[in-house]
Amino acid sequence: MNSWFANISVNLKLGLGFGLVLVLTALLALTGWTSLGSLIQRSNWMSDITRLNSDLTNLRVARLQYMLANGDDATANNVQVKLNEFNQQQQHLLKTFKSPENLKLLNEQAQIIAAYQVTLDRMRATYKASAAARTDLETTAAAAMQLIDNITRDVLGQGEGDGARLEQFRAASAAKEQLLQVRFEVRGYIADNTTQSEQTALRQLDNALDYARQLAQSLPNEAARIQQFQAAVTSYRDALNRYKGAVADIAAARAEMTQQGYDIVSRSEALYKIQLERRDAESTEARSLQLIATLLALLVGIAAALIITRQITRPLRETMAVVERI
Amino acid sequence: MNSWFANISVNLKLGLGFGLVLVLTALLALTGWTSLGSLIQRSNWMSDITRLNSDLTNLRVARLQYMLANGDDATANNVQVKLNEFNQQQQHLLKTFKSPENLKLLNEQAQIIAAYQVTLDRMRATYKASAAARTDLETTAAAAMQLIDNITRDVLGQGEGDGARLEQFRAASAAKEQLLQVRFEVRGYIADNTTQSEQTALRQLDNALDYARQLAQSLPNEAARIQQFQAAVTSYRDALNRYKGAVADIAAARAEMTQQGYDIVSRSEALYKIQLERRDAESTEARSLQLIATLLALLVGIAAALIITRQITRPLRETMAVVERI
Repeated sequence: MNSWFANISVNLKLGLGFGLVLVLTALLALTGWTSLGSLIQRSNWMSDITRLNSDLTNLRVARLQYMLANGDDATANNVQVKLNEFNQQQQHLLKTFKSPENLKLLNEQAQIIAAYQVTLDRMRATYKASAAARTDLETTAAAAMQLIDNITRDVLGQGEGDGARLEQFRAASAAKEQLLQVRFEVRGYIADNTTQSEQTALRQLDNALDYARQLAQSLPNEAARIQQFQAAVTSYRDALNRYKGAVADIAAARAEMTQQGYDIVSRSEALYKIQLERRDAESTEARSLQLIATLLALLVGIAAALIITRQITRPLRETMAVVERI
Repeated sequence: MNSWFANISVNLKLGLGFGLVLVLTALLALTGWTSLGSLIQRSNWMSDITRLNSDLTNLRVARLQYMLANGDDATANNVQVKLNEFNQQQQHLLKTFKSPENLKLLNEQAQIIAAYQVTLDRMRATYKASAAARTDLETTAAAAMQLIDNITRDVLGQGEGDGARLEQFRAASAAKEQLLQVRFEVRGYIADNTTQSEQTALRQLDNALDYARQLAQSLPNEAARIQQFQAAVTSYRDALNRYKGAVADIAAARAEMTQQGYDIVSRSEALYKIQLERRDAESTEARSLQLIATLLALLVGIAAALIITRQITRPLRETMAVVERI
């Protein structure tokens, strides 16, 4: 090697030496530049995930506020708005992320969001059904109250003896009392949807219905209105069963949405973890590359300087020796 | 300049030329290294804020679940656990962040968290007061019911004529009916804490109390028990007022915590924004520095190569010319 290198001109030697060092310097610069760029890109992706998480938080908070507001429809709209915002950011991420690992998580997440939307729609429908059932409870109870009040009034006003009136009034009052007790227990069930309060309300309602069925025996003249009263109480029971069904459906929807929420969060966390791992891997790699390029540039530079100096000064010294001899 | 440079040895010239280029290369490497390091540090800070936000989300969700569980104490403990976790991460950030701007926000946030803790404690106490008031409502209502039931039973059993018994029974039944109606409306108020349901319940209770006060006129023999009945209904009203106070306190605590939650979030968001801005500023600066260092290294390298080549080849050419003449 030294022989061909010795034979090329000084110009070329210096050009080669500096050129090599400068190429390495340029490579070093390129490494720094691209690794900075990929780190910024990675950090942007991480910020996008952070933004996604923040949208998800808004959604989860809105959903719980909706439940706290007992299915109020304005609050429901707010949940939908937050879900749309979250969905939009998720779609944005689906477009900006590239690697299959990330996309797999994002696609899974998109599917869970779609399922979340379905459950939310169901929850809204169920809350409406629950509100309708509650209105029916009020209407049917009011009808039953009106009937029993009329019966009681007419029993008091009729011409029979005080003894018979007292017995009939007792019977009618007891029916009204039963009904009031039912409504009281049903409201207790509405206030706290526990199995115990549900059972108490249903048992009380069964007692009231049993009593209403026997009422005609004590009040033979009121058979027709008593039948209407029984029908009203039966409608009340139907409304209560609808309400009970709605409560169960809301609880099921809530459990589903809670699970979906966790599943969405776990995908986001996995996604963020991948970015952190890749950021660490990329920056370690960038550090190694920078270190190697720097050392290489320094070594090549020093070697080039030494070799070229020797290549130039040796023939000069030899020439000088010849000149001296002359 | 050229004169002193022309007079130094070839060794030194080459050493200076390569040395300058290599120093610039080393500077370039240092720039890349430190800017990568500060970007990684910045990204770690951003991840710490993301983690803080996630802890805050857990806290906010737990707080709403606590309210949905109507102040259940196990759920309250969960809120405290989440608050502690959030506080811990916040303290960690307070230790790792350095710049005054960041520390200001973090210190503000720490103060809001301390206030949040106070409000949470108050909310827990208030929920306990509300539960105690509800228990008192049940106890006093049960006592009143027992008394009026006893009065009614004894009225029916006494030896007076049917006409007087009927009147007395009507009066006692009406009192019981009033009481049942009150309990019904109060449960409606407990189920949905609206102003309307509160007013309905209070009005109904006032009616029942008025009626209870007049009851002694219709049932002169029962003055003592009627007084007890009145006392029980008055205790019931006291319990209802305590419950009403607790509901108002819970609503106030909720509003406070909601505001505190927003204030905590806004600090986190401002903190994150600062990191993003600094990251952008730092990476722009790093890019400029890298560009300048690279260009400088290339220019100096090329210039050094040209100058040194000329410095060496010109005297050689002149020497050759002299030799040719000889």
